[in-house]
Amino acid sequence: MSRFWSPIVHTLTPYVPGEQPKLQKLVKLNTNENPYGPSPAVLAAMHEANSDALRLYPDPNADQLKDAIAAYHGLGREHVFVGNGSDEVLAHAFCALLKHDKPLLFPDISYSFYPVYCGLYQIDYRTVPLNDAFEIDVADYEGDAGAIIFPNPNAPTGRLLPLADIERLLQRQPDVVVVIDEAYIDFGGDSAIALIERYPNLLVVQTLSKSRSLAGLRVGFALGHLQLIEALERVKNSFNSYPLDRLAIVGASASFGDEAYFRATCDKVIASRERLGAALASLGFDVLPSAANFVFARHPQHDAGRLAAGLREHGVIVRHFKAPRIDQHLRISIGTDAECDALIAALRTTLG
Amino acid sequence: MSRFWSPIVHTLTPYVPGEQPKLQKLVKLNTNENPYGPSPAVLAAMHEANSDALRLYPDPNADQLKDAIAAYHGLGREHVFVGNGSDEVLAHAFCALLKHDKPLLFPDISYSFYPVYCGLYQIDYRTVPLNDAFEIDVADYEGDAGAIIFPNPNAPTGRLLPLADIERLLQRQPDVVVVIDEAYIDFGGDSAIALIERYPNLLVVQTLSKSRSLAGLRVGFALGHLQLIEALERVKNSFNSYPLDRLAIVGASASFGDEAYFRATCDKVIASRERLGAALASLGFDVLPSAANFVFARHPQHDAGRLAAGLREHGVIVRHFKAPRIDQHLRISIGTDAECDALIAALRTTLG
Repeated sequence: MSRFWSPIVHTLTPYVPGEQPKLQKLVKLNTNENPYGPSPAVLAAMHEANSDALRLYPDPNADQLKDAIAAYHGLGREHVFVGNGSDEVLAHAFCALLKHDKPLLFPDISYSFYPVYCGLYQIDYRTVPLNDAFEIDVADYEGDAGAIIFPNPNAPTGRLLPLADIERLLQRQPDVVVVIDEAYIDFGGDSAIALIERYPNLLVVQTLSKSRSLAGLRVGFALGHLQLIEALERVKNSFNSYPLDRLAIVGASASFGDEAYFRATCDKVIASRERLGAALASLGFDVLPSAANFVFARHPQHDAGRLAAGLREHGVIVRHFKAPRIDQHLRISIGTDAECDALIAALRTTLG
Repeated sequence: MSRFWSPIVHTLTPYVPGEQPKLQKLVKLNTNENPYGPSPAVLAAMHEANSDALRLYPDPNADQLKDAIAAYHGLGREHVFVGNGSDEVLAHAFCALLKHDKPLLFPDISYSFYPVYCGLYQIDYRTVPLNDAFEIDVADYEGDAGAIIFPNPNAPTGRLLPLADIERLLQRQPDVVVVIDEAYIDFGGDSAIALIERYPNLLVVQTLSKSRSLAGLRVGFALGHLQLIEALERVKNSFNSYPLDRLAIVGASASFGDEAYFRATCDKVIASRERLGAALASLGFDVLPSAANFVFARHPQHDAGRLAAGLREHGVIVRHFKAPRIDQHLRISIGTDAECDALIAALRTTLG
């Protein structure tokens, strides 16, 4: 508390990201990073850009990257917004598109940054409970709403909503913006990008942090109708002209040029997810069906907090949310098969 | 205009950065970039970090960089805030520290992003005219104020305020935050960092874009009392957990380890500035005394807009602000001596 603070600062409850431990040799399955590195084409592009040209500002519009994303998804550049990770893209979307007289709706169990953004931008919101199977039911979002946002697949549950459900929601709520946060879509879902040309109220947000193995580079993007993109650009250009540095622009652009590597990496993660799910089930865990690069699981006989602490003693870190309805679950990122095996071995000892 | 926009979006007037032309071979003296590349130590550190480790998130607190900055300036890590360029640091400062019941004060001629931030965060502000010599007089800031911000040296004038004046202001306004935006301080001024331990209301903002030749990497920072830094961290962690990517953290950190390169580069720019100032004066320009890596000059017989257009025809771009009191001035960034000579030659032709 300080007399120097703007009054809003006293009211903020910042987001707490998953731990980034400085110790090496941990089996790190807590922040949904990809176990495989980025495409060699990405590293090569950044190698070339790591030069005296860093003395010059980047392109404030990052047109090279917008063009790469636009071409990849078969849209025009003017449908693309880019930012410093999808967290920054989401922040600008909350500011630019999600603050209205009626409350913003999102699931009670979802990305825990959403209420934090609402605090920062003083957005009235209402959480909508997932059903007992931890699924989003779009019928629950058809009432009074200023705007709607949810991840698909949802986090931290990993559950996927079919595209038909999203389309139904867009039809029932044509006057409010619907943001689909697709951080994990490449691990098994159909992207709502296919619906953008038909629904001017749809904004799709994606990231290069997960399926493209670039969490360390901070690049995310949004796709949508021109008017939605213009709102994001106005806010971005009132905040920071150059959020993407020169290396991020060329590295991210190169990622969209190496489809074979991208597909192979996603396929390996998906195969490991199915393998891990089966192994967890054989230890007695209830594992939710996941279309993401993590699984969400609980053990009927073992407290999740104690399990997480026990794993940590074995050098394996997973994420445990001390939140209502999910405090008996663990969110486990998909590592390599060897890392998953280490997790299973540690769990076997911990379960006793 | 769109019914999907949050109401504030309709009111924003975004900042327009200096042009980043995609054509090569221009003599680019319009955005105050350093004519020399970053330290080889920076490129070497980033070369090493350009690896599979990019699959992992960066340290959200960027402690390595905070430690490098803290050690360089002889302060503790807890006095350091870092961000995606000083523009992002300034944005968070406007949100966290500069919104109060009384108006924020800044000069009428100053960094033109300040009123844009005020629009985004709906901050009441009042501009204080520079005197006729385009100087800040701190006595003009001693009245009713919610907070105060100005650059030192000021932009786009380049004029420097002595540290004693800043200290006097801090003493006369102990109850309001004073932000000194030192983007250009390394080209000839004394930093207010020396005052931080004595004045809990002082925040100093710096950037690596100018004197450290890293405009393309997007790194800025703020130094101040713990309470001021805490406010910035709260806002940052309500917006984006990881604004600095892995390469930016290691590259920026390495910059603070190569003092010899930094000093030599600044000295070269300063020498070129003095040389260019003399050459402009010999062509009849009135040149303001500059402590920055640019000069601000007008020609009594030639319209500034026409001069800028004429220079452009010769492949030289400078910045011309179509704003009250300064629309007859040109802001000319300091290039290499060869670039400055090209500017002078082009001017000679343009002046006729």
